[in-house]
Amino acid sequence: MKRADRKFMEDGIRTLHTFNSTPELKGNTRYIFTDADMQARDYLKSLIKEAGLELYEDGIGNIFAVLRGEDSKLPPVWTGSHFDTVINGGMYDGVVGSLGAIEALKVIKDSGERHLRDIAAVLFTSEESGRFGIGCLGSHFITGEEGFVSIEDTKRIKDDSGVTLYEAMTERGYGKDFEKIRKKKGDIFAFIELHIEQGPVLESMGIPIGIVTGITAPTYISVTIKGEQRHAGSTPMNARKDSMCAFAEIVLELESYAKSLGHPNFCATVGKVNVSPNASNVIAGEVRFTIDLRGIKSKPKDKMAEDIIRFFAYLKEKRGVKIEYHIDANDKPMFSNENLVELIEGVCEDKKLPYHKMNSGAYHDSLMMAKLCPMAMIFVPSKDGISHDPDEYTSMDEIMEGMDVLCESVLRIANRTEPLN
Amino acid sequence: MKRADRKFMEDGIRTLHTFNSTPELKGNTRYIFTDADMQARDYLKSLIKEAGLELYEDGIGNIFAVLRGEDSKLPPVWTGSHFDTVINGGMYDGVVGSLGAIEALKVIKDSGERHLRDIAAVLFTSEESGRFGIGCLGSHFITGEEGFVSIEDTKRIKDDSGVTLYEAMTERGYGKDFEKIRKKKGDIFAFIELHIEQGPVLESMGIPIGIVTGITAPTYISVTIKGEQRHAGSTPMNARKDSMCAFAEIVLELESYAKSLGHPNFCATVGKVNVSPNASNVIAGEVRFTIDLRGIKSKPKDKMAEDIIRFFAYLKEKRGVKIEYHIDANDKPMFSNENLVELIEGVCEDKKLPYHKMNSGAYHDSLMMAKLCPMAMIFVPSKDGISHDPDEYTSMDEIMEGMDVLCESVLRIANRTEPLN
Repeated sequence: MKRADRKFMEDGIRTLHTFNSTPELKGNTRYIFTDADMQARDYLKSLIKEAGLELYEDGIGNIFAVLRGEDSKLPPVWTGSHFDTVINGGMYDGVVGSLGAIEALKVIKDSGERHLRDIAAVLFTSEESGRFGIGCLGSHFITGEEGFVSIEDTKRIKDDSGVTLYEAMTERGYGKDFEKIRKKKGDIFAFIELHIEQGPVLESMGIPIGIVTGITAPTYISVTIKGEQRHAGSTPMNARKDSMCAFAEIVLELESYAKSLGHPNFCATVGKVNVSPNASNVIAGEVRFTIDLRGIKSKPKDKMAEDIIRFFAYLKEKRGVKIEYHIDANDKPMFSNENLVELIEGVCEDKKLPYHKMNSGAYHDSLMMAKLCPMAMIFVPSKDGISHDPDEYTSMDEIMEGMDVLCESVLRIANRTEPLN
Repeated sequence: MKRADRKFMEDGIRTLHTFNSTPELKGNTRYIFTDADMQARDYLKSLIKEAGLELYEDGIGNIFAVLRGEDSKLPPVWTGSHFDTVINGGMYDGVVGSLGAIEALKVIKDSGERHLRDIAAVLFTSEESGRFGIGCLGSHFITGEEGFVSIEDTKRIKDDSGVTLYEAMTERGYGKDFEKIRKKKGDIFAFIELHIEQGPVLESMGIPIGIVTGITAPTYISVTIKGEQRHAGSTPMNARKDSMCAFAEIVLELESYAKSLGHPNFCATVGKVNVSPNASNVIAGEVRFTIDLRGIKSKPKDKMAEDIIRFFAYLKEKRGVKIEYHIDANDKPMFSNENLVELIEGVCEDKKLPYHKMNSGAYHDSLMMAKLCPMAMIFVPSKDGISHDPDEYTSMDEIMEGMDVLCESVLRIANRTEPLN
């Protein structure tokens, strides 16, 4: 089999980087159904057409490219990733696996490799949570969990300015054939995703390939603290119900709680806060923020959420503030299919590429897909472990090694007749 | 002498409330040189003209109404307040003393009361710090302290979107005759300001009039914490330089420090914070916020500032973050002129209005004016001590009692021949 086309990957990464809502910043912002997102869609669809692959989009905007196998009646292999970004993010997160999926199909096609099963490249709608506060939107609707089933569900999901997912989606011409988005168990033979590590492990070990054995899952809690908006000069310290101070206590409680667990795959983060009225000489009346909890096991992660909610009650009592919260997501950590991991290990060994089996601290569309079908992920190194930042970087050599593993793995899975279990 | 015109005050308060940049909110936002501010200016100038008073504006937009006395060569009496608001603020802060100043001149004129000195109503440009981050802009330029002297100074003062005070000012036709704004000691005989208390003292004592003996002064510090913007899932807790957590520590340190001073006129507040990139799944790379310190004595207030800056150094070491700060203002607390306080006490006694001598926790243009001339303030009660909030409220009966004291006090000062100290 040919190697992947380095220029295709390099041009693709550079071109997608030009579709950016924040050109004034150093990084890239591409939120679902913005102009930048639509430009990226047009570009990716043009690549699929040029490659001579079958193209279709589903009702929520997941883009598919299909390469037919010898028996299209067999469940297909899927590979893919996302093409949206966080606010002022980097060039590689999601993009490598999206372009990589298209390129893998091209390579298999152009090499004339025989394969039994259909192979689909899937480019997921909005894996990041930037606009609507919910990660993995596209794959959530594919798995069709509660709250992500019908078009009605898109009417309750709103962005910061009150626009519903339904409005944003239909304005761009999506929302058709909504019932066809959802897949059932058995519909897909396996899902495999190439992604940058977004952490420091591979680089520090000097190993080019990570094989993901488990993915930590997030719990998102959105919180509103309501105190009393008062004059910063004429309100004595002991007469205050300062929602900023209550917020600060929660931030530090979360940090010390997560630190105390002493495990790299249990984290707690407050990354987003909005204050009202947000004036230097006014005691904050209202603070709205999000809590992001991650864990590789459900039980301790759920306990972390319960304990922080218990802490809210203590703070309400102590400070006389009101605290409202909503659990926006509570996903379960998922594990890769052992047969798929073994298959990828075999590919790495054949290609003489050192590999490391590891958990993913970041979640991915793979986390959702694992609910539907056997899943595994291939990681390539991230320089200094930096991600969700303009300085995110993976070298083209590293990306090409990841592509070598992806293409061969996809081909082997597409020819597999034994069940994966 | 006649009483003040209740309807003039009531209509004025209601009408100014319609000049509002945030009509979608419950309260009022009127920042310097916005459309809402310009509408308020036009309205106030029309009231001055209708009252048959001399009208002029200075280069920074302070509006003056003048009622000539028998000897215009004598230093005049000034009374006045501001007509801008905080973001989503109330209807009374500043507005009562601005309309009250015009009305006091009208009452004295229409009652045919003789008076020796000229009396000027002064309506100050931007007492609140909302747009340019600096309080008492108009009165700062009148006192002409370092940094508030020439038109050059207006070129370094910027709002959040980078517009300079110079640009905002000249766009609205201001900036002319800049050298005439500044006053010297001896130019003004006395300044007196009617204002709502913005705290709970008068209401809780059931007393209608507060006579201010001292005004606490603010120190403003703007701070930027730079940590490392990283992925919230794949960055272990012990590998983080989280600027949100460093921010939270500062908020709580300030609160506990100010509380430990145990004095109603020493306060510390963090009311404004902006986070970058402000995304739920990204560790905050940068947090910018303001610290507002208040004190009725300079020494402990300065020590509070020094100690918090020392705390920055400790945090930088502890968390590996960078912390940059700038002291935007460091005003000195000022005390009222004792003869003026005594004169107002006499007015209250003659009118059988109970009064309470007190410090002002909020600062006012009076704080600046006290550097130039003898100063005193008259407070009227604030319901539930609420201010800088849409629920700010003072009854018309209370405002009218304040006006009774203001009109009589202004008249007596305007006829005073003895020096004030």
